[in-house]
Amino acid sequence: MKTLLVIDMQQAWLESERFEKEQVLARIEFAANQIRQQQGKVIFIQHCNEQAPSGSAGWQLADNLTVTTEDLLIDKTACDSFVGTSLLACLTELGTTELYICGLATEFCVDTTLRAAVSAGYSVVALSDAHTTGDRPHLTAAQIVEHHNWVWQNLAIPQGQQLQVRTVAEAFPTDLKSTSS
Amino acid sequence: MKTLLVIDMQQAWLESERFEKEQVLARIEFAANQIRQQQGKVIFIQHCNEQAPSGSAGWQLADNLTVTTEDLLIDKTACDSFVGTSLLACLTELGTTELYICGLATEFCVDTTLRAAVSAGYSVVALSDAHTTGDRPHLTAAQIVEHHNWVWQNLAIPQGQQLQVRTVAEAFPTDLKSTSS
Repeated sequence: MKTLLVIDMQQAWLESERFEKEQVLARIEFAANQIRQQQGKVIFIQHCNEQAPSGSAGWQLADNLTVTTEDLLIDKTACDSFVGTSLLACLTELGTTELYICGLATEFCVDTTLRAAVSAGYSVVALSDAHTTGDRPHLTAAQIVEHHNWVWQNLAIPQGQQLQVRTVAEAFPTDLKSTSS
Repeated sequence: MKTLLVIDMQQAWLESERFEKEQVLARIEFAANQIRQQQGKVIFIQHCNEQAPSGSAGWQLADNLTVTTEDLLIDKTACDSFVGTSLLACLTELGTTELYICGLATEFCVDTTLRAAVSAGYSVVALSDAHTTGDRPHLTAAQIVEHHNWVWQNLAIPQGQQLQVRTVAEAFPTDLKSTSS
């Protein structure tokens, strides 16, 4: 089963400036709909800390992301979404074969969860234009997004596994047959 | 027990240009000696692939790193030093409490192993001036080293754990008592 992990797309972390924020939100919404249409599962990961305790306004997901009753929601407190959570058990129960990853922040929770997923044995698709971050003292958000996409493309992964870095359009190509016929 | 992980400081990966190569080698040699003097353990991780098969010239450790009969050597094939290796079993048997991490390449095996060590429950000290990489198409090696040091300093780690980012001089302060008395 294809599973989409949407990491930390919460009010508290979307208040500030984020690289291509509106486009990233729209691409995640599109990817989630595609996954649902393909009978896959959408899992929203939500980070909880003193700034955004579970249930608080800041902890809520972005208004313009659709959450259906079929989706799963998992709280976490560390950058690695597998630590102290039911994520691994959920993926095992779902029979996840391909894990699509998107969300924020690129260099923290997205990157850590992606590397952990590869180490846990999953074939991973990093959605290269559906993760975001903010400008940092030393690099712009655009540079950080570019850097981590490049790192993931060149990572030495365990034999027999796949780690693909693809745009949302590449990962979920629109079916043109219906209009071209 | 304090344990130092020296990641991939091998001939094959040190042939090309590396940020502060000689200084990084000297700092790692110093850190390793300090760890040995403190009854800690030094573990050299060696990456094996088609460019540097186990036992080949390229797979050998850098000439100017001392390896003692007390040190451990562990081969790996993926960026995460815990995957497909005896590293976790070794650390458990050693009773490792603090894990010091250095080596190359910053954004690949060092970063992945560091995040995996934190997720595995270890208190980690990233030696901020004892890891290195090369210039990449999008960023210089110096920018990449700075970026990952910054990321590790700001990573949301599991409660009760520590992730410190310290220079070798900070992590192993020279004992001035003998000269000042």
